[in-house]
Amino acid sequence: MATGEEIRSWCRSGKWTGSTSRVAEGFAQANLVVVSAEHAFDFLLYCRRNVRECPVLDVTDRGSFCSQDLAPDSDLRTDLPRYQLLVKGREIEEHLDVVDLWKEDAVAFLLGSSSTLEAALLEAELPVRHLEQSLEVPVFRTQRSTREAGVFSGPLLVSMRPMTPSQAIRAIEVTSRYPEMHGAPVHMGDPSILGITDLSAPDLGDPVPIEEGEIPVFWSCGLTSQEALIQSGIDWAITHAPGHLFVTDRRDRDLERD
Amino acid sequence: MATGEEIRSWCRSGKWTGSTSRVAEGFAQANLVVVSAEHAFDFLLYCRRNVRECPVLDVTDRGSFCSQDLAPDSDLRTDLPRYQLLVKGREIEEHLDVVDLWKEDAVAFLLGSSSTLEAALLEAELPVRHLEQSLEVPVFRTQRSTREAGVFSGPLLVSMRPMTPSQAIRAIEVTSRYPEMHGAPVHMGDPSILGITDLSAPDLGDPVPIEEGEIPVFWSCGLTSQEALIQSGIDWAITHAPGHLFVTDRRDRDLERD
Repeated sequence: MATGEEIRSWCRSGKWTGSTSRVAEGFAQANLVVVSAEHAFDFLLYCRRNVRECPVLDVTDRGSFCSQDLAPDSDLRTDLPRYQLLVKGREIEEHLDVVDLWKEDAVAFLLGSSSTLEAALLEAELPVRHLEQSLEVPVFRTQRSTREAGVFSGPLLVSMRPMTPSQAIRAIEVTSRYPEMHGAPVHMGDPSILGITDLSAPDLGDPVPIEEGEIPVFWSCGLTSQEALIQSGIDWAITHAPGHLFVTDRRDRDLERD
Repeated sequence: MATGEEIRSWCRSGKWTGSTSRVAEGFAQANLVVVSAEHAFDFLLYCRRNVRECPVLDVTDRGSFCSQDLAPDSDLRTDLPRYQLLVKGREIEEHLDVVDLWKEDAVAFLLGSSSTLEAALLEAELPVRHLEQSLEVPVFRTQRSTREAGVFSGPLLVSMRPMTPSQAIRAIEVTSRYPEMHGAPVHMGDPSILGITDLSAPDLGDPVPIEEGEIPVFWSCGLTSQEALIQSGIDWAITHAPGHLFVTDRRDRDLERD
């Protein structure tokens, strides 16, 4: 099993361009958002005001492209397998590195991803349906709004994992220990409470079956911040490509609450 | 006993210009730091990187002078008893209000104060020596550095409260429940570990006696952020005057960890 450092070096050399789903297990993965300095305060404040959806693990100094806290030897311009460039809020291009796209005054944000939550669920022998079926986690736009900060606003996005009520109770206990990684679910049961009309038609990812006796359990999703980025329409931003995250040196377990 | 709202209205009308020590007990008090927009990102990042010393309770939107989260009817320009204006990092003037000094692009930060910790200690029937003796809490500059962010850096400042070892153990348990309000102590016992040479000569506040059988217990102090503000030498900033804090609508108990 590879380490975070190995995955990053393979990305850097072009040897790894695939998804980071279940690679380097045990090592925490992070979502990447890069904005220019003029929007850095608003974005950091947006994350603060929506801490469950946008759990900030590290913020680079202006102009730096190294995540000191998560991987001191990292180069965020090359160490992810795939990136996307957003111009005026539209995803316009995918790139294997962003060395030439990086701006001098850019600030990079590393946000907790649900892979840490899922590692904790698996460790507790709880089912993670989309992983069992090698699918992408189903994600829904809700009718709940996040809290606005400057140019950033948008709906809450949630991921869904079906469980029996007793599994859900255990999952709540387990995920409550990771307040920095979306934490406990935001809702379970009736999806209409969140304004979701059809569980078989997620806005992103794949539909997963809900078995007899199971209820849908909803967690805040890191894609909430990407949606806010898109809705802001800001001139320039870089993010990881969906499913292609930054693999850190930190262990999932280190992100558990003291 | 007055409420937070009453204290704020008395400040606004000029009826209250005194210290907020032990006024409106049960209502959380907050330190105020106001900087112009150009420094807001650096300051928010500094607080994030030094979360125990600088626990952010609320941040205003650019140009707003109301703390939506802590007191929705507040006017931060008038609702504290006394302010200080810092120019190039030097405290140059004290003011009873800052209506005319406020900048259009200013961002205000409300930081947790140790009054919440002390309320919890008193509730647990633990001694708070300087309150018993009607003194200001003794504060020491340490030789530990905080983590830098942009223009902001400086030493860790700590407040000290003497206790017996068994009281200290109970105090650790109690204050651990307030991670957003400095939380557990940073150190106890030998002050030289922090680079403090003389406990009877605090850098700020008053010396308090340490009785036979007691050890000094040190907590991160909110004045750490003021020190960073001073050391930055930025052109313009406003803070509360020492001891003259913003009294909120939030209860101290609401700041306890879920």
